[in-house]
Amino acid sequence: MGENRKIYAALLGAGTVGSGVYKLAGMQEEDIFLKTGAHLEIKKILVRNSGKVREGIPQELFTDSWQEILEDPEIQIVIEVMGGIEPARTYVEEAMKAGKQVVTANKDLLAEYGDPLFEVATENKCDLQFEAAVAGAIPIIRPLRQSLAGSQLTEIMGIVNGTTNYILTKMSEEGMGYQEALDMATRLGYAEADPTADVEGYDAGRKIAIMASIAFSSRVTFPQVYTEGITKITAEDIRYAKEFGYVIKLLGITKLTGKGIEVKVHPTLIPDSHPLATVRDSFNAVFVHGQACDDAMFMGRGAGQMPTASAVLGDVIDVMRNIIHGSCGKIGSDSHKKLPVLDVEDTKSRFFLRLQVENRAGALANIAGVLGNNDVSIAQMVQKRSHDGIAEIVVITDLVKERHFNDAIRIMEGMSVVREISGIIRVY
Amino acid sequence: MGENRKIYAALLGAGTVGSGVYKLAGMQEEDIFLKTGAHLEIKKILVRNSGKVREGIPQELFTDSWQEILEDPEIQIVIEVMGGIEPARTYVEEAMKAGKQVVTANKDLLAEYGDPLFEVATENKCDLQFEAAVAGAIPIIRPLRQSLAGSQLTEIMGIVNGTTNYILTKMSEEGMGYQEALDMATRLGYAEADPTADVEGYDAGRKIAIMASIAFSSRVTFPQVYTEGITKITAEDIRYAKEFGYVIKLLGITKLTGKGIEVKVHPTLIPDSHPLATVRDSFNAVFVHGQACDDAMFMGRGAGQMPTASAVLGDVIDVMRNIIHGSCGKIGSDSHKKLPVLDVEDTKSRFFLRLQVENRAGALANIAGVLGNNDVSIAQMVQKRSHDGIAEIVVITDLVKERHFNDAIRIMEGMSVVREISGIIRVY
Repeated sequence: MGENRKIYAALLGAGTVGSGVYKLAGMQEEDIFLKTGAHLEIKKILVRNSGKVREGIPQELFTDSWQEILEDPEIQIVIEVMGGIEPARTYVEEAMKAGKQVVTANKDLLAEYGDPLFEVATENKCDLQFEAAVAGAIPIIRPLRQSLAGSQLTEIMGIVNGTTNYILTKMSEEGMGYQEALDMATRLGYAEADPTADVEGYDAGRKIAIMASIAFSSRVTFPQVYTEGITKITAEDIRYAKEFGYVIKLLGITKLTGKGIEVKVHPTLIPDSHPLATVRDSFNAVFVHGQACDDAMFMGRGAGQMPTASAVLGDVIDVMRNIIHGSCGKIGSDSHKKLPVLDVEDTKSRFFLRLQVENRAGALANIAGVLGNNDVSIAQMVQKRSHDGIAEIVVITDLVKERHFNDAIRIMEGMSVVREISGIIRVY
Repeated sequence: MGENRKIYAALLGAGTVGSGVYKLAGMQEEDIFLKTGAHLEIKKILVRNSGKVREGIPQELFTDSWQEILEDPEIQIVIEVMGGIEPARTYVEEAMKAGKQVVTANKDLLAEYGDPLFEVATENKCDLQFEAAVAGAIPIIRPLRQSLAGSQLTEIMGIVNGTTNYILTKMSEEGMGYQEALDMATRLGYAEADPTADVEGYDAGRKIAIMASIAFSSRVTFPQVYTEGITKITAEDIRYAKEFGYVIKLLGITKLTGKGIEVKVHPTLIPDSHPLATVRDSFNAVFVHGQACDDAMFMGRGAGQMPTASAVLGDVIDVMRNIIHGSCGKIGSDSHKKLPVLDVEDTKSRFFLRLQVENRAGALANIAGVLGNNDVSIAQMVQKRSHDGIAEIVVITDLVKERHFNDAIRIMEGMSVVREISGIIRVY
C-alpha cells in the first residue's frame, strides 16, 4: 500500500455529530494515515436539504440521494449519524448488503433491531461498529466485546444518561427541586425540548439493552427493559438518601442470574462511597463486574459533539484497518446464546420505602406485619417524626422479590392506617 | 470452520498468572468457542522443572524445552507469562519469527524492548498483544490503540501500582507511617519481599512508558522515564496534604507538549475532589485526556491472578479471531513518530515545599526572594507555626520549570536561615 491509498466514506447526517465527525476527520488526517496506512476521505454527506450551507463543509459533498451513495463503488464505509429508526435502518441494511462497512452512533436502532442487523452483517461479512451508541466517548463496547471477553461478566451498572445525571446532581448538591433542575438542564442544552426519553429512562434503557446483549452474549431488546424514570424523585427523597449515606442515581442495571437476564433502569440509592456516587453532572460511567476481572469502571463524556465524534472516528479507524487487512466482520453477532429475559416482577431488589401513617398504637407493627406476611424482610425500619397525629416511617428492605414487595404495597394502599406512600426507591 | 476447529496455544510459565490463565481457559471453554468459532487448547506449558506437580494441571502438558514448543507447527499462539527480560525476549522474538502469535503480560520487556519486538511483529505480520502488561484487568491498551484512536490524546495520568496505592491509602486513612504500611502490605502479599520496583516507582515507570508510546504514537522506553518513589513520604506530609484539601498518590504522568513528551512518575498531591483521589487500596486507575474525547477514566484491578488472567485471555480471544480471519498483525507498531522525550528538568510542575527556617525578621522574605529570583512564582505561602525559634513555612508554587525550582532549592540548602527542607512534593 502506497502513500496514496485512500479509503472513501460517506456520512449520513450533518447534524451536531455528523459535522463533528467531518471536522475531526480533518484534524486527525495525518494521524489516521499513520495509524492505518491509508487516507480517509469523506466523499459524500447525505442530508435532507443539499442546498443548505453548513459552515466548514464544502457544498459539493452534500447530496440528498441515498442511491447515489449506495451505488458509489468507491465508498467503502457508511457512517450513520442521522439517528432514529427509519430511514436509518433501511440505509444501514442496504449498505451492508452492498458490501459496505457500517459505523453507527444510533442506539435506538441497535436496541431494537440489533439482531436482524447483525445477521445481515454476518451474512455479508461486514463490520457493524457502534462504540458511540453507548456512553459517547467512553470506550465500553470494545472493552466488553474484546478486552473483557476472557471473563464471565455477571453485572453491569451504568450512569448512561447525562441529562438525568445532571438533574440529580443539581438536586443533590444545590437543593433544587426536580422541575427547577430540569429547567436549568434545558437552558444549558443538556435536556431536549421534549425530555421524555431522558427523564423516563428510555435512553438509558436502550443503552443497557445494548450492553447486556454484548456482556451476556444474548440479545436483549429495548422493549424487554423495565424502565422507571426520575420524574417522581423529590428534594425530600434526596434529603433522606443523604441522611442514610446514599446518593440517588438513575442506573441502568443488568445481571446474569441462573434463571436468565435481569435488565432494568430505575433511580437507585447507592452508598456515597461507591465509585458511581462520585460521577457528577453530565458525566457517564459504567461499572462492570466479572468473575475473573472483578470490578472495573469506565468514566467519561457520554455525549457532546466532539466526544461522540471521537468514538465514531475510533470505529472508522478500526474499520479502515479491517478493510486493509481483509478482516471485516471479524467479531460478528454478540448473541450466540438465547437466554430468557426475566420479568421485572421475578427479579430481586432492595427497597427504600417512605410512608405516612396514623400515629397510633400498633401502626408500626401493622406495617411490619404486612411486609413480613409477603416475604419482604426488613433491614432497617425507623419512625422518623410525627406531628398532627401522623408519623413518618422509613423502611429499607433486604433483597426481596419485586412481586412480593409490590403485593405488600398494594395491601398497604388499602389500609386505613396508611395515609400516604410517599416514596419507593430501589437500593443498591 | 466446523465444530471441531481447534487453535493450540503454549503457555510460557506456570506461576500465579500462568496457572490462572490455564484455569480460566478451562472455565471459559464454551464461551471462547461461541465467541470465536474455535476451541482453545493449551497444548504445552514451559516450566523450569517439568517434573514438579502443579495442582489442576495435567503433568503431560509440562515441558522444559522451548525448542519443543517453537518447533511444534500446531502451536499458533504463545502466551508469555514468565516475566523478566531474558529468556522471555528471545522466546517472544523466536516465536514471532516462526509465525506464531504472541500474547504477553510482560511490562519489563515491552517498556525496554517494545520497538525491536514490534518491528519483528510487523515484519512477520504477527500479533503481539499485551493488555495485561499495564493495569491488569483494566482495558487500557485496546482503548488507547483503538477506541480513542480518533482523538488526539494529550495527557495520561495513572495510579498503576497497587502496592504503593495500598500503602498510601493506609497512611492516609489510618494514620500509619510508611514502614508500618509497607510491612502490612508485605504481610498481605501486596508487596514483594524486595519491594524496590514498586516503592521506587520503577514498575509504574514501565507502565507509563508503554502507555505514552501508544497514546502519542512515539516510542518511550523505561530509561527515559523520570521516577521518584514514595519512600520519603511521611505521615506529616499526608497530614499537610489533607489540610490543604489534597491526597497523595503515586502517579505515572505523561503529556504531549509542543516540544516533546513529558513522562514521569512521582508522588503527587491531587485535589480530593479529583476522580483519581477516590481510587483506594490496591485498585488501579488511568485518567486520559484528549482533544476530542475530553476526560475519561478507567478503574479496576491492576493485579492479582484472575484479573491478570482475564486480560491475557481477552487478548488470546482477539488473536484467535485474527487467526480465523487471517488478519494477524493488523495494528502493528504504535511508534510512527519520533518525538523527543523531554529532560525532566525542562518540564513544568507545581510544587509543595515544606521548610523549617529560623524565626527571625526577614526569613520569609528571604525565602520568597530566592524563589522569585529563580522564576519560581508562588501560589500560596504560609508560616504554619513556630517554636524554639524555628518557624515552619509551607509554599505551593505555580507551574514552574523544574530546573528553576531545583536551582532555588540548591540555594536554600546553602542558606543559614534554612534549618531543614522537610518535604518537596509535586502538585497536580
